[in-house]
Amino acid sequence: MTPTAGSGPDRVVLSVDAMGGDKGAAAVVAGMAKAADKNRGVAFILHGPASELRPLIDRAGLSDRTEIRDAPGIVAMTDKPSQVLRKGKDTSMWSCVEAVRAGEASVAVSCGNTGALMAISTIRLRRIEGVNRPAIACLWPSRNAGGFNVMLDVGADIRADQDDLLQYALMGASYAKAGLGLDRPRVGLLNVGTEEHKGRAELKVAHDLIARIAPRANFDFVGFVEGGDIPSDRVDVIVTDGFTGNVALKTGEGTATLIRDLLGQAFRYSSLSRLAAVLALTSLRRLQKRIDPRQVNGGVFLGLSGTVVKSHGSADATGISAAIKLAFRLAESGFNDRVAARVAAANAMRAEDGSDNRIGGAA
Amino acid sequence: MTPTAGSGPDRVVLSVDAMGGDKGAAAVVAGMAKAADKNRGVAFILHGPASELRPLIDRAGLSDRTEIRDAPGIVAMTDKPSQVLRKGKDTSMWSCVEAVRAGEASVAVSCGNTGALMAISTIRLRRIEGVNRPAIACLWPSRNAGGFNVMLDVGADIRADQDDLLQYALMGASYAKAGLGLDRPRVGLLNVGTEEHKGRAELKVAHDLIARIAPRANFDFVGFVEGGDIPSDRVDVIVTDGFTGNVALKTGEGTATLIRDLLGQAFRYSSLSRLAAVLALTSLRRLQKRIDPRQVNGGVFLGLSGTVVKSHGSADATGISAAIKLAFRLAESGFNDRVAARVAAANAMRAEDGSDNRIGGAA
Repeated sequence: MTPTAGSGPDRVVLSVDAMGGDKGAAAVVAGMAKAADKNRGVAFILHGPASELRPLIDRAGLSDRTEIRDAPGIVAMTDKPSQVLRKGKDTSMWSCVEAVRAGEASVAVSCGNTGALMAISTIRLRRIEGVNRPAIACLWPSRNAGGFNVMLDVGADIRADQDDLLQYALMGASYAKAGLGLDRPRVGLLNVGTEEHKGRAELKVAHDLIARIAPRANFDFVGFVEGGDIPSDRVDVIVTDGFTGNVALKTGEGTATLIRDLLGQAFRYSSLSRLAAVLALTSLRRLQKRIDPRQVNGGVFLGLSGTVVKSHGSADATGISAAIKLAFRLAESGFNDRVAARVAAANAMRAEDGSDNRIGGAA
Repeated sequence: MTPTAGSGPDRVVLSVDAMGGDKGAAAVVAGMAKAADKNRGVAFILHGPASELRPLIDRAGLSDRTEIRDAPGIVAMTDKPSQVLRKGKDTSMWSCVEAVRAGEASVAVSCGNTGALMAISTIRLRRIEGVNRPAIACLWPSRNAGGFNVMLDVGADIRADQDDLLQYALMGASYAKAGLGLDRPRVGLLNVGTEEHKGRAELKVAHDLIARIAPRANFDFVGFVEGGDIPSDRVDVIVTDGFTGNVALKTGEGTATLIRDLLGQAFRYSSLSRLAAVLALTSLRRLQKRIDPRQVNGGVFLGLSGTVVKSHGSADATGISAAIKLAFRLAESGFNDRVAARVAAANAMRAEDGSDNRIGGAA
């Protein structure tokens, strides 16, 4: 059978790394099947050991829309990014990113080692001109009508200066437009208090830079927000450095998981509460779906000349399916070209500002 | 009636700021009454406008164990700490801290402006010798048998270097012993990954410093932990800088509140789910109590020559009662003397280490 991945004007081609996740290639293929079931226009290039992948793809009924690309090496969760850059050219992860670089696929999806994926992506896809640090954006369950907020950076880098935070604001606003379909996203800068005199010096400078560019970049800047605002409807995009964002993301997930487990215990407590659980099953499933981290699985690398979706390492078929659906939506919307255009326009504006903008930079 | 606050060998005297909380003096007095109901050995010095407080105390039946100290000024939530230090000597907050400094009360409790309370406490109570930055420790609902973990710093300062983090580990371990009754607490250092090569430089140095002192300070060091571990049973004490800790704390609270609200919606969804809610009422109340931020209300300032409990600004009677009970427990255990002794011992150990320990400091 002829692989159809690279061809066809009405098909979106996604490049998928079969290896490196905790649950192995079988979970990845099951996630692909789940996502493909509802998106007839998607095709795949799947990277990994061909002899292992072929039977999985055949059994899943995906052989008419999947090209398997043999890559024997696997990036382990414990591999250091620097090692992978030196010796990882035969890995499924490298091959997966390479297909996007070569223009064969629109978006890459991997559930492997985040540091290694970021390193390979940065080296092979390069940064968008004008972006110093790429960022990882995640979706966060919220009180907003769409059900989600965007937060970045959640772990691409462990630091960010004022210019990086400005770029995160621009990239996050673009992502909210493409990923959440918002016309005019509200962007907030994460701090320890909403008063303007609080927080680190670089946050105050970033506050002024973002406030100045917001009207011309078609988003609203709501100023400083706090941790409690991350799931709120005060804001659509939360901007922060990758250390703080990563801690917040994992804290939120840990809290949600704890409450879900305690809720389960509460319902098993007595025969009356077990009966209640049966009666409330539909409502509880709806809640579960709303706060299940698997449903919002997929961090997106922003700031590179090519889109990469990082799925959770422990993702199962449901989680991988969510990541693939997100990749499909971003590919369809021509998201990455929009980000590049927005960053270029903002940099042009800042250059026009001239010395005015340097006041902020020097503070 | 003669005030009994300052006297009696079997009474613990707490100094309580009646003003500055969002719900006013009435909520504070109601919280005192709630806490006193279960702790016959507690007495109060209450600070605020005497004419407003007298009728509240009489109505609450607390006049036999409360001395009212007239202080007309109120610190507002919007006041800058520097303003309060210059012009706040007539405020209830100042008077509240002053009673601890003078040795009239063991522990101060306030639900006012955190920055101002920290500033007054630092100036009037001074730092324990050997402590550079005081910290705020909070209790966090967790999977541990006791139901809670300790995290610090959650907002006393916005930065912390390796030596500060080491002191937080020592102070947090002491707090877990006194506040949670643990013999040998497990301490973890918050980072973006548990691998040793990840994270900021000062965290790697702090990791080595804490690892070296743990065996001699009678706690176990579990190394780096992530945001998801904060509510886990892997660890009892989570050490981090005040910026990250504050964001994590508020993120956790925001997530818990969102889920609670969504759960409420789920149960109102249909007549079947409304019936289920009635049947599960007891179990749900138990869950509610477990994850209710009001039940763990009370951040403790550590590192000062005197203990200060900061209640949430929006605390109601339940929240204030929780803060007062915590203050009582700490006062009873002679907590602050233990912290001072531990820090002094650790500093002596580090001095003995000599140049060996400086290797860490220079990295």
